[in-house]
Amino acid sequence: MWRLGIDLGGSKTVLAVGDRRGQLKARARYPTEPSGDPQRDLERLLEACHRLLAEASLRAEDLEAVGVAVPGPIDRERGLVLGAPNLPGWERVALCDALVSGLGRPVHLENDADAAALAEWCFGAARGARDAVYLTMSTGVGAGLILDGRLHRGARGNAGELGHVPIERDGEPCVCGQRGCLEAYVGGAAWARRLRARAPEASTCLALAGSREALAPEHVLHAAAQGDAFARAELDRFNAYLLQGLATLVFSLAPQVIVLGTIVAAAGEACLGPLRQGLRRRVWPVLAREVEIRPAALGQGLPELAALCAAFQRGDSVD
Amino acid sequence: MWRLGIDLGGSKTVLAVGDRRGQLKARARYPTEPSGDPQRDLERLLEACHRLLAEASLRAEDLEAVGVAVPGPIDRERGLVLGAPNLPGWERVALCDALVSGLGRPVHLENDADAAALAEWCFGAARGARDAVYLTMSTGVGAGLILDGRLHRGARGNAGELGHVPIERDGEPCVCGQRGCLEAYVGGAAWARRLRARAPEASTCLALAGSREALAPEHVLHAAAQGDAFARAELDRFNAYLLQGLATLVFSLAPQVIVLGTIVAAAGEACLGPLRQGLRRRVWPVLAREVEIRPAALGQGLPELAALCAAFQRGDSVD
Repeated sequence: MWRLGIDLGGSKTVLAVGDRRGQLKARARYPTEPSGDPQRDLERLLEACHRLLAEASLRAEDLEAVGVAVPGPIDRERGLVLGAPNLPGWERVALCDALVSGLGRPVHLENDADAAALAEWCFGAARGARDAVYLTMSTGVGAGLILDGRLHRGARGNAGELGHVPIERDGEPCVCGQRGCLEAYVGGAAWARRLRARAPEASTCLALAGSREALAPEHVLHAAAQGDAFARAELDRFNAYLLQGLATLVFSLAPQVIVLGTIVAAAGEACLGPLRQGLRRRVWPVLAREVEIRPAALGQGLPELAALCAAFQRGDSVD
Repeated sequence: MWRLGIDLGGSKTVLAVGDRRGQLKARARYPTEPSGDPQRDLERLLEACHRLLAEASLRAEDLEAVGVAVPGPIDRERGLVLGAPNLPGWERVALCDALVSGLGRPVHLENDADAAALAEWCFGAARGARDAVYLTMSTGVGAGLILDGRLHRGARGNAGELGHVPIERDGEPCVCGQRGCLEAYVGGAAWARRLRARAPEASTCLALAGSREALAPEHVLHAAAQGDAFARAELDRFNAYLLQGLATLVFSLAPQVIVLGTIVAAAGEACLGPLRQGLRRRVWPVLAREVEIRPAALGQGLPELAALCAAFQRGDSVD
């Protein structure tokens, strides 16, 4: 009845043991601190798994299965991480094989945005929706697509790279090497770079951040709420570009629900209001009236539940 | 065992009686010539259905079901045509109820791009693909999405309006009232308007068309093949913008197959070559190597098979 879920991120790793109703028996978080050598990173990960199982008074044999969510492109069928932007050296790493050897249980590999989408669909803001999209709105932008009541993974498990749909021809350069990607406008890392380059000395953002190097989207949200002109213009720009991404989703997939994560969930009405209003203008009424824009509901607990969802894969649906 | 399929288009109406293997027993085509009064259009459509059944020596009772494919937004559950750009007066028309009354059989409503996608998936270029997208590339641009082996219809049956995903912020105006839609760049009607406004007097396109008013995308294809500079530049532009749409599809859905209809199928390698090459540059290698770009395979026979597919709906899959 127990499953072990792992969310292996570039900055932190989250482990959770729980059941299919999302009840956690044990959990752990630690900084990933990638060594540059995937083999060493894997040994450290396996140690953490065994430690958590011991804490939970479980043996690996007590687990029905293990799930692992990773950022970046994967080959889901073969259990390979093809490359992960924030895990140096992780190219064509046989993550599932390593976990199967170390734990002796079946292992499922999932894209991290897909795992988060499953979590918000099973336990959060998209519960009960037949067609729902979850958008991570953090360092990067990724999507998990729940279509006709199932996670749509696409070839090799790499659907939902919504951060890289082109919204402007020959637009801003993106970390992925392309131009005009949605993420180049509304990804947290891209936005932070822009803010550090452009914030006027007198802006409230800068005062809130303490230094130019520390400036991040969260400071824009706070400064805009205090009426800072630069911050308000930046927030308007963020909403306008994100709207292009939402219009792409609505015209192509006609979902009932779009759930927006991190930055938008933190901003609340400062983003949600303009996005909902903008969408009514930007897409046809027949489409606009069928879709609801909602903030993510799982907050700080999302990584554990996402990890757990990666471990519950039977028939693609979690119930 | 027999079903009646109807493809109700703005310019022509296609009827087909056939079985689930795509074998046609009878077929008919006639110009739609919408009267402006949906009631009269419906009477004419029902007469055509009864005439075709008589020709096929069938009674309506011999039909298992009827399917009807229409352009423009629908409410699939309620069997309503919400509005059809080329059918004047067709707003919130209860098409299914009218056909049920007139024929006494169950009636399925389908978006025309979805019906065409089903046809290319069951009988044409996307046969056997788990994830495939069919793009109509004719007067307008629409998509049918086969995802995880099923047609993805979205809320009310209106997914796949790929012609209206924004590919340029504040870009060219589109007939739908928005700006920067894919269709404003690569839709046949939009392209024809642009060609008529811009073709130089000396261009081969114009000579092939006979007059500026008659100028259409097909003349660009022929003139480009003959080396006409204006036509080649126009074809390059078409390919470059269509590539933005294909990149959107690949990053968001990671399909195995994208099937391109009318204009691209007619152009053959003049479009397919640059699109395949361009896609390898425009999307990540991990995604590009999983997707094949193919021309539509059903050609002139597509409307009958699309109509028939609209009539075979059991469990969303046609087999």
